[in-house]
Amino acid sequence: MKDVAARAGVGLKTVSRVVNGEPGVTPETERRVQEAIDALGFRRNDSARVLRKGRTASIGLVLEDLADPFYGPLSRAVEEVARAHGALLINGSSAEDPERERELVLALCARRVDGLIVIPAGDDHRYLEPEIGAGMAAVFVDRPAGRIDADVVLSDSYGGARAGVAHLIAYGHRRIGFVGDHPRIHTATERLRGYRAAMAEAGLPVADSWVSLGSTDPERVTGAATAMLSGPEPVTALFAGNNRVTVTAVRVLAGLPRPVALVGFDDFELADLLRPGVTVVAQDAAALGRVAADRLFHRLTGATPRPARTELPTRLIPRGSGEIPPGA
Amino acid sequence: MKDVAARAGVGLKTVSRVVNGEPGVTPETERRVQEAIDALGFRRNDSARVLRKGRTASIGLVLEDLADPFYGPLSRAVEEVARAHGALLINGSSAEDPERERELVLALCARRVDGLIVIPAGDDHRYLEPEIGAGMAAVFVDRPAGRIDADVVLSDSYGGARAGVAHLIAYGHRRIGFVGDHPRIHTATERLRGYRAAMAEAGLPVADSWVSLGSTDPERVTGAATAMLSGPEPVTALFAGNNRVTVTAVRVLAGLPRPVALVGFDDFELADLLRPGVTVVAQDAAALGRVAADRLFHRLTGATPRPARTELPTRLIPRGSGEIPPGA
Repeated sequence: MKDVAARAGVGLKTVSRVVNGEPGVTPETERRVQEAIDALGFRRNDSARVLRKGRTASIGLVLEDLADPFYGPLSRAVEEVARAHGALLINGSSAEDPERERELVLALCARRVDGLIVIPAGDDHRYLEPEIGAGMAAVFVDRPAGRIDADVVLSDSYGGARAGVAHLIAYGHRRIGFVGDHPRIHTATERLRGYRAAMAEAGLPVADSWVSLGSTDPERVTGAATAMLSGPEPVTALFAGNNRVTVTAVRVLAGLPRPVALVGFDDFELADLLRPGVTVVAQDAAALGRVAADRLFHRLTGATPRPARTELPTRLIPRGSGEIPPGA
Repeated sequence: MKDVAARAGVGLKTVSRVVNGEPGVTPETERRVQEAIDALGFRRNDSARVLRKGRTASIGLVLEDLADPFYGPLSRAVEEVARAHGALLINGSSAEDPERERELVLALCARRVDGLIVIPAGDDHRYLEPEIGAGMAAVFVDRPAGRIDADVVLSDSYGGARAGVAHLIAYGHRRIGFVGDHPRIHTATERLRGYRAAMAEAGLPVADSWVSLGSTDPERVTGAATAMLSGPEPVTALFAGNNRVTVTAVRVLAGLPRPVALVGFDDFELADLLRPGVTVVAQDAAALGRVAADRLFHRLTGATPRPARTELPTRLIPRGSGEIPPGA
């Protein structure tokens, strides 16, 4: 740092301010210090990539919904790994809008985050290629990257849904409804694929009216679930494609005169204290975040493995709602 | 933009890249474009403060816990206001650590956010004075700023807790326990003050053993609640200081042979579907975020009102758990 200060013709305190991204330095001085740092190869630690331009290391996390509790443990796990590496975590939300995702990702890159963890809203991430080429590390989580070769950490959506639906079939159900998220969302279609596989394996037909994909807005989900539960041949069980759908389904079923079976993808707080307790296919959201962040920091500290796809197992937790027989 | 391009000696596309913070521009070119922008007074819109240095406008939100569902609607409301102003929202978490808060706030400032909304972990924000002096707008929400004069948006913690405890007293309770968050957190002490006021107004003494402040870790809360509910003169009702405490209290009470009354500060998902439904003192978390963000953008578009403190009302929602009489 003394060499940098001497070369830039400034005091040690000024070098420290620039390195730590603190205020009170003119752009001209910052540039002089930065040039001295570049010339001398000064680094705060030995990881060149973690500390581009000498600032406090930071990583970005792009979520799709700030208010979805599923992302709470995931974000916190990423933050814990970041902190263990002395880095700050900066979050943003795409609000499930591919254009917003791109805008946010590029804004974070422009703000010099060292790496990115992305829960993608879009299905084309070629816009990140120049950044990745320039040394940015990026890991995709919960959903795969589109049209680029990148690290991906997922839950086994297909296998989890298949096991959850097979569980309902084992309890005697033949007419099972599936209410899921938008069909453009990878996890929604994977879980639907799991549902169809379980039905096919049991030799059960699937009526078109038993499947509804779309927004997880409570009104949409209420309408879809209510329609499946009505008519001459109502479904006797529901499979809910994610925690937002499950919570609304619980509310719909609580208003019915007869018990209807329910299995939901994703665990959620208080699921065990409802009556009946809600049977779920649980993902380990914290593990998703931890594995993704570990992968990112592995790259940031200089490793360059080939991009890999990791799939974490899910776990069926029977609590009562998934063990209600048809016509109970 | 043409004038900027001509003065900097670059193409229009390059100016656009710099203005939007997109990659693919060398630092030297970026500096030339920036100097041309500064010289010509080019702005993407007429708000000089929103677009410092011509980048995409962004505001920062510093939370205290990424996994606390209370902050979901608050974050989303801030994001909606930001989006309506064409700005991006960048989040970070202090994890309730004042040093981390300071580090994160300054890192966001160094990354040129135009304004900040802070849920403070610390009680001394003089470190922000140089930033505010340099034109950064900052609004504090949920808890007040410490040792600086700044905009603050709060819920009426004192009044809400007082009304919630008075509700329990009205149902016949005389021995009421209070389990809250850390005493260094403003909302925790305000809610305790409300509890004490309600007890005093009813002429009821408060035994030391009925009050427990500390971490909202489930183990700590379980121990505190269990201790109050045991012994020769157990409390007959609990007041929970926030949603993290309430959720654990529900779990503790579900394991008891007799019903015990409970009122919690903060509403939470599914509170109405538990048996009994959980009576809460609800804050409007979305309104907190919206009011704070509106205040911030008011300043960012050039207004300079004196810093103000806004207190939003709370609302008691009776659902069953708060209407259980003593010895039921």
